[in-house]
Amino acid sequence: VSRVLRLQTPALLVDAAALEANLSAMSAALPGARLRPHVKAHKCTELARRQQQLGHHSFTCATIREMEVMAKAGLGSDLLLANEVLDCSRLIPLADAGARVTVAVDSPETVKAAAAAGIAEVLIDVNVGMPRCGCEPSDAGRLADEARSRGLTVRGVLGYEGHAVGLEDRPRRLQEVEEAMAKLVTAHRNVGGDTVSAGGTGSYDINQVATEIQAGSYALMDTAYAKLGLPFRHALTILATVISANPAGWAVADCGLKALGMDHGNPAIAGGGPVWFCSDEHIVFSAAEGRALPAVGEQVEVLPAHIDPTVAYHDRMHLVDDDHVEILDVWPVDMRGW
Amino acid sequence: VSRVLRLQTPALLVDAAALEANLSAMSAALPGARLRPHVKAHKCTELARRQQQLGHHSFTCATIREMEVMAKAGLGSDLLLANEVLDCSRLIPLADAGARVTVAVDSPETVKAAAAAGIAEVLIDVNVGMPRCGCEPSDAGRLADEARSRGLTVRGVLGYEGHAVGLEDRPRRLQEVEEAMAKLVTAHRNVGGDTVSAGGTGSYDINQVATEIQAGSYALMDTAYAKLGLPFRHALTILATVISANPAGWAVADCGLKALGMDHGNPAIAGGGPVWFCSDEHIVFSAAEGRALPAVGEQVEVLPAHIDPTVAYHDRMHLVDDDHVEILDVWPVDMRGW
Repeated sequence: VSRVLRLQTPALLVDAAALEANLSAMSAALPGARLRPHVKAHKCTELARRQQQLGHHSFTCATIREMEVMAKAGLGSDLLLANEVLDCSRLIPLADAGARVTVAVDSPETVKAAAAAGIAEVLIDVNVGMPRCGCEPSDAGRLADEARSRGLTVRGVLGYEGHAVGLEDRPRRLQEVEEAMAKLVTAHRNVGGDTVSAGGTGSYDINQVATEIQAGSYALMDTAYAKLGLPFRHALTILATVISANPAGWAVADCGLKALGMDHGNPAIAGGGPVWFCSDEHIVFSAAEGRALPAVGEQVEVLPAHIDPTVAYHDRMHLVDDDHVEILDVWPVDMRGW
Repeated sequence: VSRVLRLQTPALLVDAAALEANLSAMSAALPGARLRPHVKAHKCTELARRQQQLGHHSFTCATIREMEVMAKAGLGSDLLLANEVLDCSRLIPLADAGARVTVAVDSPETVKAAAAAGIAEVLIDVNVGMPRCGCEPSDAGRLADEARSRGLTVRGVLGYEGHAVGLEDRPRRLQEVEEAMAKLVTAHRNVGGDTVSAGGTGSYDINQVATEIQAGSYALMDTAYAKLGLPFRHALTILATVISANPAGWAVADCGLKALGMDHGNPAIAGGGPVWFCSDEHIVFSAAEGRALPAVGEQVEVLPAHIDPTVAYHDRMHLVDDDHVEILDVWPVDMRGW
């Protein structure tokens, strides 16, 4: 690993070929509107534009900022805010400018907030098993009636099986997804509308109920999803420089807690040995078995454990060729913040 | 908690009185040059300026970006980059513009890099017990000689007792700091120079060896440091809005993994009950014993477990009054990135 990319490290690298392979594999499995790519995983309109070029014109967002930036980038033909908000006022100008805006609601308060702001369309967010947002399936019909009575168009239901998508045991994942979707079907029966929005990278080929799958992580991947045996490759790494090496058996590179989402635990060193710990600006690791510790000044690549909160720390990603020696393009991470 | 601050959430709040109390308490304990505040904990030049107004004119940085922004803000009279870098070229314009720039070195490679770039002053970084950067104490003298032979001025030694500063058991913390500093004294004897730079918030009143303490977290604090019984209060919280509440016993607020450093585990809800888990844009929690769950639309405050990687996700902090109902000032978090 003696080659050196002329970049201030830490820096996000995106393997262009791996990204394209991931995007193509998903588009083949879920063409067009069957996929509603979730932009929270990459927060990058240039990457969303590639998804659109492959035929996906509807997108999922997690924040108002993501909705705003997508609309401004001309990617607003069908934007779903798959999250509850109490103040929808910033979304109205997007709709006025021609974007199609749909918001998730799961309570009388959020229905009222959407109607009061002048939102046109909503999905009823249903709790399908993970203790987070979403009304109980048995309340969904009543909530849809309330939304319609306030003048909102109810496009259907939304229910994220987040407790199931990451299960490494595939039969168990299948079963949990099935049970979650049975709840969503029940709710949908009482809600109506054409849309059943659900799923993620871990259930894209399992969820048979959703009319659209909200996958996001598949594009760049991380070490958590890599455990599931999915047909998607690591496309994102973090380039780091070895700044210190101790003869007692460890090296330190300049990619730390401020460059990495840490909720899924330590990242991995590509082709490297065990990671000991991370500090604010450091990752400490030892050599892989039978290999030498990298020397001071060499570059290593770090594989994040969780892609979404990793990308959110960086202001740009660098597209690189197969050998990671040439920078092909630089894409701003332009949907950060709120 | 029915009051509502008109802010897009999640948003960093800084209790102005708590911040001032923390800054004053530290300045009383370590006046003037006895404290070299570490800016990595807050990444905010406005906050650094308050530290300067209290008599601290020398600062510690962890990244080249921090060095650049501090110098540009007129806070560059004595900037220490307490980290190894292989490419010092971006630091040279700061020195040319009048900033005093000192860089940590711990290897022949980093000495060579500093000399080649035209850096004037260095500290020899010594490993005092935590497996991270720093040369072995017995190598420090030789490295100082090498630095001097290349024309660098060696100001002294640097050794961070990071394995000791967070120990909750104070007698053990005392002993570990003492053992670490014995190593630094040995190294200093062979290196020379006036400076022995070490310490942090957890050892500010324990470390009797350092000529200057590099504390940073004391200004804003977090739940990890709060366990040490230090005379510093929580000054930073994250304002969040309850966006969903489930009668089965949990609430969801809009402060998640992209607003929180998670390496020290889950944050806490101020005055609230147990935190169940965090997702990208959510924190799920239940009510404190004997208290009702907050309602949808109410605001809660979240206490981060680790301040440094939390602040690095946000682009500004809002100074608020004692009751957290009035915004007194907005400070940019202007030292993010690299």
